[in-house]
Amino acid sequence: MGLTVAEKLIETHLVSGSLKRGEPIAIKIDQTLTQDATGTMAYLEFEAIGIPRVKTELSVSYVDHNLLQTDFRNADDHRFLQSIAAKYGLWFSRPGNGICHQVHLERFARPGKTLLGSDSHTPTAGGCAMLAIGAGGLDVAMAMAGKPFHLIMPRIIGVHLTGKLPPWVSARDVALWMLRKLTVKGGLGKIIEYFGEGLSSLSVPDRATIANLGTEMGATTSVFPSDKITLAWLKAQGRDEEWQELLADPEAKYDEIIELDLSSLEPLAACPSSPDNVKPVTELEGLPVAQVIVGSCANSSLRDLLVVAKALKGKKVHPSVSFEINPGSLQVLENLDVLGALQDLIHAGARIHQSGCLGCIGMGQAPATGTISLRTFTRNFPGRSGTKNDQVYLVSPEVAVAAALTGEFTDPRKLGAYPEIGLPERFIINDALLLPPLPEEQAAKVEIIRGPNIVPLPQFEPMPEELRCQVLLKVGDNITTDHIMPAGAKILPLRSNLPAISEYVFSNIDPEFAKKALALKEQGRWIAVVGGENYGQGSSREHAALAPRYLGVRAKLAKSFARIHKANLINFGILPVTFADPDDYEKISQGDELIFKKVRQVLSEGRDRLEIEILGKGTIYGKIDLTERDRQIILAGSLLNLAKEG
Amino acid sequence: MGLTVAEKLIETHLVSGSLKRGEPIAIKIDQTLTQDATGTMAYLEFEAIGIPRVKTELSVSYVDHNLLQTDFRNADDHRFLQSIAAKYGLWFSRPGNGICHQVHLERFARPGKTLLGSDSHTPTAGGCAMLAIGAGGLDVAMAMAGKPFHLIMPRIIGVHLTGKLPPWVSARDVALWMLRKLTVKGGLGKIIEYFGEGLSSLSVPDRATIANLGTEMGATTSVFPSDKITLAWLKAQGRDEEWQELLADPEAKYDEIIELDLSSLEPLAACPSSPDNVKPVTELEGLPVAQVIVGSCANSSLRDLLVVAKALKGKKVHPSVSFEINPGSLQVLENLDVLGALQDLIHAGARIHQSGCLGCIGMGQAPATGTISLRTFTRNFPGRSGTKNDQVYLVSPEVAVAAALTGEFTDPRKLGAYPEIGLPERFIINDALLLPPLPEEQAAKVEIIRGPNIVPLPQFEPMPEELRCQVLLKVGDNITTDHIMPAGAKILPLRSNLPAISEYVFSNIDPEFAKKALALKEQGRWIAVVGGENYGQGSSREHAALAPRYLGVRAKLAKSFARIHKANLINFGILPVTFADPDDYEKISQGDELIFKKVRQVLSEGRDRLEIEILGKGTIYGKIDLTERDRQIILAGSLLNLAKEG
Repeated sequence: MGLTVAEKLIETHLVSGSLKRGEPIAIKIDQTLTQDATGTMAYLEFEAIGIPRVKTELSVSYVDHNLLQTDFRNADDHRFLQSIAAKYGLWFSRPGNGICHQVHLERFARPGKTLLGSDSHTPTAGGCAMLAIGAGGLDVAMAMAGKPFHLIMPRIIGVHLTGKLPPWVSARDVALWMLRKLTVKGGLGKIIEYFGEGLSSLSVPDRATIANLGTEMGATTSVFPSDKITLAWLKAQGRDEEWQELLADPEAKYDEIIELDLSSLEPLAACPSSPDNVKPVTELEGLPVAQVIVGSCANSSLRDLLVVAKALKGKKVHPSVSFEINPGSLQVLENLDVLGALQDLIHAGARIHQSGCLGCIGMGQAPATGTISLRTFTRNFPGRSGTKNDQVYLVSPEVAVAAALTGEFTDPRKLGAYPEIGLPERFIINDALLLPPLPEEQAAKVEIIRGPNIVPLPQFEPMPEELRCQVLLKVGDNITTDHIMPAGAKILPLRSNLPAISEYVFSNIDPEFAKKALALKEQGRWIAVVGGENYGQGSSREHAALAPRYLGVRAKLAKSFARIHKANLINFGILPVTFADPDDYEKISQGDELIFKKVRQVLSEGRDRLEIEILGKGTIYGKIDLTERDRQIILAGSLLNLAKEG
Repeated sequence: MGLTVAEKLIETHLVSGSLKRGEPIAIKIDQTLTQDATGTMAYLEFEAIGIPRVKTELSVSYVDHNLLQTDFRNADDHRFLQSIAAKYGLWFSRPGNGICHQVHLERFARPGKTLLGSDSHTPTAGGCAMLAIGAGGLDVAMAMAGKPFHLIMPRIIGVHLTGKLPPWVSARDVALWMLRKLTVKGGLGKIIEYFGEGLSSLSVPDRATIANLGTEMGATTSVFPSDKITLAWLKAQGRDEEWQELLADPEAKYDEIIELDLSSLEPLAACPSSPDNVKPVTELEGLPVAQVIVGSCANSSLRDLLVVAKALKGKKVHPSVSFEINPGSLQVLENLDVLGALQDLIHAGARIHQSGCLGCIGMGQAPATGTISLRTFTRNFPGRSGTKNDQVYLVSPEVAVAAALTGEFTDPRKLGAYPEIGLPERFIINDALLLPPLPEEQAAKVEIIRGPNIVPLPQFEPMPEELRCQVLLKVGDNITTDHIMPAGAKILPLRSNLPAISEYVFSNIDPEFAKKALALKEQGRWIAVVGGENYGQGSSREHAALAPRYLGVRAKLAKSFARIHKANLINFGILPVTFADPDDYEKISQGDELIFKKVRQVLSEGRDRLEIEILGKGTIYGKIDLTERDRQIILAGSLLNLAKEG
């Protein structure tokens, strides 16, 4: 029987289980990555496990999120992470070196390998034929300790690409087309694999853009084959010896197939405030635009910035547009400069920022009140930009530059001839800010540098037999981890300080949530949150589980859960339960008391049905969809507890 | 009788008074500038005056301070300022175009003219033979309305420069030498004028660095002659027709003379936490350095960045140093790029930021806890970096780059051959982000864009006859406007919202100050603050007067006042009083009630002595050093009240 690329990647790394869809499997992890916003906590967890050196083939600690340094905390975190990397045998990518996914693609992504990253956009490396999965920091810490990664064997969607992208249409539009088709939850429990002759015109960075945005569809990951184009990319990075061919077998079978003729695509935009609210740009033309940003792990490669620079050459940005560039990496910036294109951007009046995530994670560049911002970013969840009631549209670099020139939404096909963009056969490599692992002897002598904002983890109690919780919050569908644990310039610096960051849990929905929760905690009472469909979509941040847990949240009852968030809930001993009958959602009101009955018994005996009493209103049933390992973790109170027990 | 350059500049602009030292004078203002942190308030004041168009030869509104945009407020301010400029006939320098003083030097500074700016480093343009003075926003608003600027005729210090700077020693070291000699208050009431054959090796940007740092000596301004070097600068900017020669007469007389042989200088550093705490770098060698930043209005010209880039060429920044570049302007960045030097910086691993003030005003780039930061900035007041207990050293670009390479304080003379830096005969001009004034007809149609954080000014009550105040705070010597009204990334965005920013008055000295003040205000009671010598040094921010006034502060009693702050106090109706007997400072305790007797009578009758009862402790006397106009302003309650009355 023939195998798909995804199946080959999984099969060669299987530690337990089989390729049978829907069954629990465990896979060996070859590489890990962290970024600073999730990394500080991941390394506190890694320290708690107590291993002297990472056991992966390669682990990299990136600093790309918290770059503004509006007080001591970001800079302290950077120094903490640098000392951790030195002590435990990791590569360290210093602040200013670029966005983890872009740098990883350039320097480390390797066809045929697995990558686990504490960032939801880790699938970017799928563009280079890796099995690259986003996970919570604790899962990444376990992987660094040599443990396999546990997941449910996903279904595999094949996307059959034919044709060639027309001028002024690019990889972003492929992803937007997919988002419109699948919505933000269409990828749940699935791997999206691209194949077909349409691949031949997509470079590795193009593929990476598409794989990156699979995250917004809720997919476990997206994968591309490793072919001659992959080899050309590795050659250009001076890494051709790391290439191996990895193609789907001719008789490979996908669980479903989507047909896409690239030549039929047009410029698209994801409208406020969801990545799947996609419209053709032709329908948006004329809307006034106040800000345009090209950047983020989705669209800040050399190609992306070159197309923008060439479209701007000899012109000026429109006086009503703030036009900003966040280069994906120091390598992108240097190559752009050597090709003369950085000068075109500067001359046109672009605001050039250091390489990093910046505005994409709400770290600066918030738009003005009541104005439209066009961004080549990954997400436009409400308020993520840092401005309430923001109007953020997600677009390709082509659509972005058109608006930068005209001051309004403009079909880029009106800009004239499409610039010919060829990538260098050999990139200039700039590893000035990339520090290799220290040899073991030197590493042993390193002292960890801890600033006053770096606070160790608390203890987590085991699950009780009867779990009585107050429903402190009831929310609707598609709640994101940005709703649960907001990011932005004010909150991100608190990522290594659990008590401090917990004060912001659900703060954009109910500013009093943390206060009320702490008051209940004081009385020794537990909390439940009730949600709708696709609860916990978006960023991989484990703080969206860890901080609620710190506040006393022990159960989440929803219609369905997003994958990474559910895994994070489990890791921190919060019981994820779905409604046996989704209509029961209506029976619960905020303020109700829920009594989850015989929880330890249900979990230990592998049962999938749980009795829940709504105090004074009657009884409903919850569904438990957990593996044996998940159950053990929740019984123990957290994965860290379990890891220490065993 | 011969005249100095400063005297010629004043004489040609005198509206009232004479060159007699110590007497009140008024001068015509040719040009004004504002930046965004002081500008929003200045334009709210300008609007309150009610003039349809600025009456100066040239007025420029710059955006350079609040560039991070961590929420909607910065971006809203930018749009407000852009609409104001369009409506009232100003030039507008958009965010990312650069630091006001650097851009002004490049595009607008004109020998023989006067410039009033709502930024304390406005004297930078003295490097181009302007009489350039920093003032509060309201003074600048009055100047835009065509009113003269009032000051006390300063004494004039002549600095006689001989010799030539040795390799690796630069303009910054001249200023540091002066700071060591004069201290932060040695320039109070004085203009510093540079002359002598030593000038022949100092370019206009070098002179601008020296004039810029005269602000830290407390000087009214610093001036340089206009000579062939000035002409070369204007030519290189395509502005040779704006040149006029302006030299001191051979028989000119200075009030005092300082001799400085440039060839005797060595690399210096201002140590924490005052710009006058100057030591030779040789005494500091070996101290570990965690951050190095080259930037700010003092030291971010093309020359400065070129010397850094050439010293770094082919090398890498030290792994323990975060090395950051804040280019002074888009023009600097583009010329640096065209000369290939930007690539040297990128290749070495520098974090390149957009052009602007950034870290210098605490807008990001805060250093890590307990680490040393070397900066080519203007000030190292405690905590101004954004990090409490910071250790900021102010140095030349030469000393900065040496530490970036070695990771420790290093005498740059050990770096080898000093790079030859020649400035271009003709700069590439980049005005992509500089918008010219609109013609009157178009301007009239512009609508002002006001975000929700832009709050109009309150009313200011006239001065009562008997002023009874509680001493809510007593402080020591050299209190800065950063102490009174802190800046930084959290507070700067509130500059256009007086009620909101007032909550932070004195917050680093007494976090409860505003709360206590508002409680007293609620009861209809007034407040006094007692200070030591040189009260209110540093930044020109009028918020350091306006916000305390909003909280109910009506009198400040100190041993002496810094010039700009005193003028701001007057403008907002706060009575500045010095101790007739400085020993009386000891008689007052925090919490005392002070009764200032017959205040209206004393002010109206031009008397210079004021009786002050310390309730329950006896009577002391205050000295009133105010011009007739100052007295009228304070009686009216604010300059705005007076302007409306008359």
